[in-house]
Amino acid sequence: MIRISVIGSGEAITKKEKEAAEQIGSDIAENNCILICGGKKGVMEAACRGAKNKGGITVGILPSLEKEEANTYIDVPINTGIGHARNCFVAASADCVIALEGSIGTLSEIAMALNYRKPVVIIKGTRFEKIFKEKFEKFGEEMKVNFSAAENAVSVALELIDKS
Amino acid sequence: MIRISVIGSGEAITKKEKEAAEQIGSDIAENNCILICGGKKGVMEAACRGAKNKGGITVGILPSLEKEEANTYIDVPINTGIGHARNCFVAASADCVIALEGSIGTLSEIAMALNYRKPVVIIKGTRFEKIFKEKFEKFGEEMKVNFSAAENAVSVALELIDKS
Amino acid sequence: MIRISVIGSGEAITKKEKEAAEQIGSDIAENNCILICGGKKGVMEAACRGAKNKGGITVGILPSLEKEEANTYIDVPINTGIGHARNCFVAASADCVIALEGSIGTLSEIAMALNYRKPVVIIKGTRFEKIFKEKFEKFGEEMKVNFSAAENAVSVALELIDKS
Amino acid sequence: MIRISVIGSGEAITKKEKEAAEQIGSDIAENNCILICGGKKGVMEAACRGAKNKGGITVGILPSLEKEEANTYIDVPINTGIGHARNCFVAASADCVIALEGSIGTLSEIAMALNYRKPVVIIKGTRFEKIFKEKFEKFGEEMKVNFSAAENAVSVALELIDKS
Repeated sequence: MIRISVIGSGEAITKKEKEAAEQIGSDIAENNCILICGGKKGVMEAACRGAKNKGGITVGILPSLEKEEANTYIDVPINTGIGHARNCFVAASADCVIALEGSIGTLSEIAMALNYRKPVVIIKGTRFEKIFKEKFEKFGEEMKVNFSAAENAVSVALELIDKS
Repeated sequence: MIRISVIGSGEAITKKEKEAAEQIGSDIAENNCILICGGKKGVMEAACRGAKNKGGITVGILPSLEKEEANTYIDVPINTGIGHARNCFVAASADCVIALEGSIGTLSEIAMALNYRKPVVIIKGTRFEKIFKEKFEKFGEEMKVNFSAAENAVSVALELIDKS
Repeated sequence: MIRISVIGSGEAITKKEKEAAEQIGSDIAENNCILICGGKKGVMEAACRGAKNKGGITVGILPSLEKEEANTYIDVPINTGIGHARNCFVAASADCVIALEGSIGTLSEIAMALNYRKPVVIIKGTRFEKIFKEKFEKFGEEMKVNFSAAENAVSVALELIDKS
Repeated sequence: MIRISVIGSGEAITKKEKEAAEQIGSDIAENNCILICGGKKGVMEAACRGAKNKGGITVGILPSLEKEEANTYIDVPINTGIGHARNCFVAASADCVIALEGSIGTLSEIAMALNYRKPVVIIKGTRFEKIFKEKFEKFGEEMKVNFSAAENAVSVALELIDKS
């Protein structure tokens, strides 16, 4: 079964970001993939809600040892007790990572995914698009970074997985 | 949802051990709990087979970055790329750990589960019964170690989770 | 004792990058600080050579379980067996992180350092300067990112540590 | 440089245990080896004091992100922020592990060291002697477990490292 990690801000997000995350979660479930994330609020919660609306499976890899840290749409809470270092496993467990708008936590997950040679789909319009388009362009191909609108992100991810 | 980790040898196991693991996996699924394990062969595979026969959900927290390392009964492979250190998360992710016969890997998982103050059910007749009955007896209560036959292990686990 | 992590490319580096790394390592030792790094070649090796020339202490937090993975200027090899995830500990162990030119591994270490709320000094002229100046500017203050030429990097680091 | 990890209780220990740990730390330093430990009190602190009395180097691999968690005899605090899971790295970083009396944390470190195929010296008279002599005897040779009085532990460790 294919596993797609959805990463992005754990804080309050805009309506548009929420809709994008929900759409992506929903598309993951409709394609019979497992949704993996960091298990918390914001982008993660919205994506999980989208997936659960379509009967998908959601996994949350959590910083703490407390199961209650998971958002209410998580089916499988994986507690680690290792704090931010759990970001590594959100990346390592995915067949492909989809990155929405976020901050430094999300950036660490994108970078770890690329360290692990995982394909990454960055949603257009996020600050990550600019960083990886301009500053890392020469690594582009080797690093398997792609850019997509939210509505096509899952199909782009599936193509990338197919090729890898 | 309640998560029970099943730990034990990843090597070839006896017919009796296989049946015990399968029974426990089956009981976990029938009680609507999630089965977590290290994702490999031996006790882990037998327990997962038991769970899948009853329509349960199985999670494998794997040492490598290769999804194919998972046994064929794993629904959700979680790759870590951290080798034996992944044993920590098999323990940290569980609401209760059930230990069948095993060797030094299993011992590290029992010890980590107790470090995390998780309840542990040790199957009677294993070498772990002797170690924890005799050598760690004075910690018995604080450490929440319990002993059970395979056929009652899941109900003992559920009671312990209920109390904790 | 103050610990400064030096991060950057593990590959072949330019003469100028080598000199910058060596200078920083040397300044760390002259200020009686411990140099921590990922223990490998490139920037890490050059920085360690600089530190050892001044009699400093060098620590390498290594991906593998093999001590021989360390460059020849490492006094204390710390093996982890967790691959790229060891980047987290290069960041977590530092009182301040100094980032020279590098790629995606270095980016993951900067991002993890900021997750841990560690001060980070980015060497001017690197791609990381552009990323963190332009794309993460609004987090600037909270995130404790600073920019410096190589020759002042250690004194900037020491000031930041002093304030934190 | 050879690295020996000293593991054992982080709690208040008896006068005899303190002397044993101090002796071992002192012997490690006199043999020009690096002492690695979990960085905390009890056995760890006593061993570090012994090493520092002889001018040795001491490393503490700490559970938290706080440097102040280290005992006062630690030269190199390595913060991890991963709690009990740091026990893995106390084992992974050693060329040999010496185990004094301890509880479940120490047991997890012995077990992890054996998972990593590291030689382990268990001090005679501890509960670990009984566990590994009786319950794991058939693995004895493969697992490289040895038993020694405290006064000979470092020379036994050095022989084991020499052979491995």
